[in-house]
Amino acid sequence: MSMNVSPAGYEPLLDIAFAHPIRLIASALGPPPADVIDRARAANVKVAALAGTTAHAVKHAEAGADIIVAQGSEAGGHTGEVGTMVLVPEVVDAVSPVPVLAAGGIASGRHMAAAMALGAAGIWTGSVWLTTAEAETEPVVKQKFLAATSSDTVRSRSITGKPARMLRTPWTDEWEREDSPKPLPMPLQPLLVGAALNRINRSATTPGSGAHELATYFVGQVVGSINTVRPADRVVLQIVEEFIDTLTALSGHLDV
Amino acid sequence: MSMNVSPAGYEPLLDIAFAHPIRLIASALGPPPADVIDRARAANVKVAALAGTTAHAVKHAEAGADIIVAQGSEAGGHTGEVGTMVLVPEVVDAVSPVPVLAAGGIASGRHMAAAMALGAAGIWTGSVWLTTAEAETEPVVKQKFLAATSSDTVRSRSITGKPARMLRTPWTDEWEREDSPKPLPMPLQPLLVGAALNRINRSATTPGSGAHELATYFVGQVVGSINTVRPADRVVLQIVEEFIDTLTALSGHLDV
Repeated sequence: MSMNVSPAGYEPLLDIAFAHPIRLIASALGPPPADVIDRARAANVKVAALAGTTAHAVKHAEAGADIIVAQGSEAGGHTGEVGTMVLVPEVVDAVSPVPVLAAGGIASGRHMAAAMALGAAGIWTGSVWLTTAEAETEPVVKQKFLAATSSDTVRSRSITGKPARMLRTPWTDEWEREDSPKPLPMPLQPLLVGAALNRINRSATTPGSGAHELATYFVGQVVGSINTVRPADRVVLQIVEEFIDTLTALSGHLDV
Repeated sequence: MSMNVSPAGYEPLLDIAFAHPIRLIASALGPPPADVIDRARAANVKVAALAGTTAHAVKHAEAGADIIVAQGSEAGGHTGEVGTMVLVPEVVDAVSPVPVLAAGGIASGRHMAAAMALGAAGIWTGSVWLTTAEAETEPVVKQKFLAATSSDTVRSRSITGKPARMLRTPWTDEWEREDSPKPLPMPLQPLLVGAALNRINRSATTPGSGAHELATYFVGQVVGSINTVRPADRVVLQIVEEFIDTLTALSGHLDV
């Protein structure tokens, strides 16, 4: 992760990506670089860019992104402080006519209907897939996600050096302690803790290792509403069905 | 404020409230006390209770609240960490059939449509009124609100001792500094800073006092979308009109 923030780091990855029939490249930290956009244009691939503030969304649009993902603070992983309810309509107004996808706290058809009420053209989801039958999430972490409430996540710099939302565990609690050293900035923190995190995950099923308690992973606040393992195709179907049901119910308010 | 958290403190205030033809009592910190609910029932007054977590919402419903206000982290004033997009549908499912109002980041008809897509029966608004023509907001603070972006608020314990969202200013920055003393717990922090805050607000228009920079007040992240002074009746009308327009546009997705 820490090696890929320069062209020398990401170009070999792009070579692999463009060797496949991809449709989309998404830039999650910062505006998409001009060379990436040029290469995507030439390959007829759309470029998306994630933004946690309206100012960043405007920069991404000016850089030439085809799609802006407005990601509220609720989201898992690297995330800002502005909530989805506030961020999405602000970004929609600021970058129009560039289409905006709503992210952060989105896992159901009700969320999708709300996102589109806010002006989004669609949704961008993450956490909802981490507990699907197909997900490669560590089994110990998957069980923690299923049991977690929406209050059980924290924005922590303890894995990457930048604030990222993850499940709160003794790992994050120790890093948050007043008398603990501060996490190092990206890209140094992953160098510091990467091997330790790999050992924790490998040992998480070993009784008495203590690793079970420490194990964590990136996830958004919507983890609280996901309590069963579902196949991914069922997740898609339920989102679409609930979206239709929600719009049908809402349209009833127009009959006066 | 610090004196009113016991019955001896709040009963004289309730006496005044119930001497008027009120329709609603709202409990903003903690479940409504049984004696308040009994008194409200006897007077045919509804009781609302604000919740920042689903667990608190369930406690409020069990205590007998007629209406739950699910208030996401975006909100101004005392507020939790769970975003409105995640909190509202969780609370709706947890306290059904008790009606839920959505709060936190709500200031427009798009927000209202999104809230009702999430299952809310209606909306609870705060920040949107602070910049109206009728608002008694300090003029200096009102101007700061009009200029602020959604990234310009912070959850700070510096005024009440509990985390409350307010405009970020040098006042909050100083309290956030690593080498500053921590705010005292409620109800001690208001005793410590109340007189100073009053002096700051009184002096905020005095050139060279430095008070202009310090002045702050409770406000939610939605402050970023409010850039003009409007009469309160116009705010209501615009919310309703945009709500209808949004539902009309959404219902178009059902025509396939």
